[in-house]
Amino acid sequence: MKAVAVYPGKKESAHLREVPRPEAGPAEVLVRVVRAGLDGTDFEINDGLYGEAPPGQDYLIIGHESLGVVEEVGPEAHGFEVGDMVVGTVRRPGGCINCRAGEADMCIDGDYTERGIYRAHGYLVDYYVEAPDYLVKLPSDYEPFGVLLEPMTIAEKGIFQAKEIQRRMVWEPSRAVVLGGGPLGLLATMLLRNRGLETYTVGREDEGADSPMQRLLAEMGSVYLDSRVDPIKELGSNLGRIDLIFEATGNSAVVFDALQALGANGVMCLTGLPGGDAQREVAADEVSREMVLGNKVVFGSVNANRRDFEKGVERLGKVRQKWPGLLERFITRRLPVEKYEEALTRPGDDVKTVLEFHS
Amino acid sequence: MKAVAVYPGKKESAHLREVPRPEAGPAEVLVRVVRAGLDGTDFEINDGLYGEAPPGQDYLIIGHESLGVVEEVGPEAHGFEVGDMVVGTVRRPGGCINCRAGEADMCIDGDYTERGIYRAHGYLVDYYVEAPDYLVKLPSDYEPFGVLLEPMTIAEKGIFQAKEIQRRMVWEPSRAVVLGGGPLGLLATMLLRNRGLETYTVGREDEGADSPMQRLLAEMGSVYLDSRVDPIKELGSNLGRIDLIFEATGNSAVVFDALQALGANGVMCLTGLPGGDAQREVAADEVSREMVLGNKVVFGSVNANRRDFEKGVERLGKVRQKWPGLLERFITRRLPVEKYEEALTRPGDDVKTVLEFHS
Repeated sequence: MKAVAVYPGKKESAHLREVPRPEAGPAEVLVRVVRAGLDGTDFEINDGLYGEAPPGQDYLIIGHESLGVVEEVGPEAHGFEVGDMVVGTVRRPGGCINCRAGEADMCIDGDYTERGIYRAHGYLVDYYVEAPDYLVKLPSDYEPFGVLLEPMTIAEKGIFQAKEIQRRMVWEPSRAVVLGGGPLGLLATMLLRNRGLETYTVGREDEGADSPMQRLLAEMGSVYLDSRVDPIKELGSNLGRIDLIFEATGNSAVVFDALQALGANGVMCLTGLPGGDAQREVAADEVSREMVLGNKVVFGSVNANRRDFEKGVERLGKVRQKWPGLLERFITRRLPVEKYEEALTRPGDDVKTVLEFHS
Repeated sequence: MKAVAVYPGKKESAHLREVPRPEAGPAEVLVRVVRAGLDGTDFEINDGLYGEAPPGQDYLIIGHESLGVVEEVGPEAHGFEVGDMVVGTVRRPGGCINCRAGEADMCIDGDYTERGIYRAHGYLVDYYVEAPDYLVKLPSDYEPFGVLLEPMTIAEKGIFQAKEIQRRMVWEPSRAVVLGGGPLGLLATMLLRNRGLETYTVGREDEGADSPMQRLLAEMGSVYLDSRVDPIKELGSNLGRIDLIFEATGNSAVVFDALQALGANGVMCLTGLPGGDAQREVAADEVSREMVLGNKVVFGSVNANRRDFEKGVERLGKVRQKWPGLLERFITRRLPVEKYEEALTRPGDDVKTVLEFHS
């Protein structure tokens, strides 16, 4: 069967390869991949900046956003039936206290693996086997947009963690800013709009108001701001008190500018991963002082928990009702798996590209 | 009666003045001040950098760390008796949702007052009147050290909030770093050592191992580190994973260096208030990336809640048992109120200076 793989650390090494079709063990499930999405992490892995092959192998099958159908169920694998629509989670636990508590997304010692990213093969493949614990079931009529579940969980976790952190005070957020107009920024906007917050999504594109991104934002009722026109550090004074900032840019200049925009009792969630080692001039006194006087909090959030997948499935149902057809419009390119090279180059107006396996 | 006051905004305007002795209203308590402590905020107010007089007045009676004895109880003031030893809290609520919920320390709109600091007179005075809600009772044998309760609540709140924030994950902190060897840094160290954490207290003094500060740290079992010898940004690699950092310096360079030292799943509490507008070169990419990959959190903490005073009273009892005489040794200078000018100049080896009123 075919798979899209890279040689980790090697620039632009993505290639199609033949690998043996796996067999489900007695406590495992065999899944036929329908389609898989690509994101910035895949691009970085193909740039040789990130990713690690499974121990003893020289290649890594990439892809961590998937949608599949159960093809076989081992006799000791419970909870799934042939034909079920499923999404596989990404991180697998190591041995730390958090991993043992089912919170591998909060792993404290780095002793985890991640399918398609770090020491475990991913989902850009015809079939994979997995234990039921790491599969999440979706209603089969979520087929047109279910591949969005995994990227959505990154936003689910960030927003859930923000709420958990703020349980310590009376916190009734009304205004949110999302930094980044990529798929994650749009999905975070969707979750926040679905909770009824006034949202502003800050991007930097030259495609105009008719771009797929700006049309999605308009449909969700979020205001699009171009950071070249509305400087991020001034958003607080221009928009009024900002209760929540969701950062999804991977640009550390944005992170530190945004700290100046966050309002009193505000919380900022960082999800972007700057790849370099840039030093930046920061308004250090002001930022530190205002964080203290305003009881502000900034936290990083990586990966997602199984609970975020389960809540994500529920949320997909609500979003579909609220904005019919919206989720489908997130997927701006559908390419056959053979066009993986094209898929790994992102056009300026792309939101989400998926590779089709068995659709 | 006498009071120590300033003309807010005017440099070194501290002066002793005669003010009328207040009378307790029917729902108020009259308190005779025994002694009051001074801290960095008082020094900054006397430097004209901070502080605001009550509306309609040109002077502000300073002092927010106090210990007093109830002298009179109004007929409708419940819960107190003449002779009770009390500490007054500092912040008084405004009208925001947090203030109305009894969480003025989390005030969202700045519409509060603070005794001795902002729009309300403080405790460097012979007598004051207060409503029972803003007085906290202490056992009378806490007289020798009860004046430490208010500064201790700043550390109580910070550490309590850190725990509240981390309820979202399995979090078993074992190693903490306290930045700052002033009274707040020492009190935070005391609370963390009392919880059994391995602690390192980072300062920058030239007094040698026999200084009161270093002797207090040795007695509590915290390791003293000089930041000129052990650079803060390298503490993580030198000491092992740091779970909690308590910042009490008011130096924003320290804040951003410390971000590089914080471990995975770590939490950093900022309490210092840098007074300037320094811009600093920050390892922005690394700090942002590591915050995300390590699920790290940084938050600011200001003032304290009534619960922090009440828990503080309990904690004083435990600390007294664990380290007999330690609390008394925090108070390195006791001066009569007439020597307020001397008290407002801090010698290099001072930990806590108090002004005596009616001891």
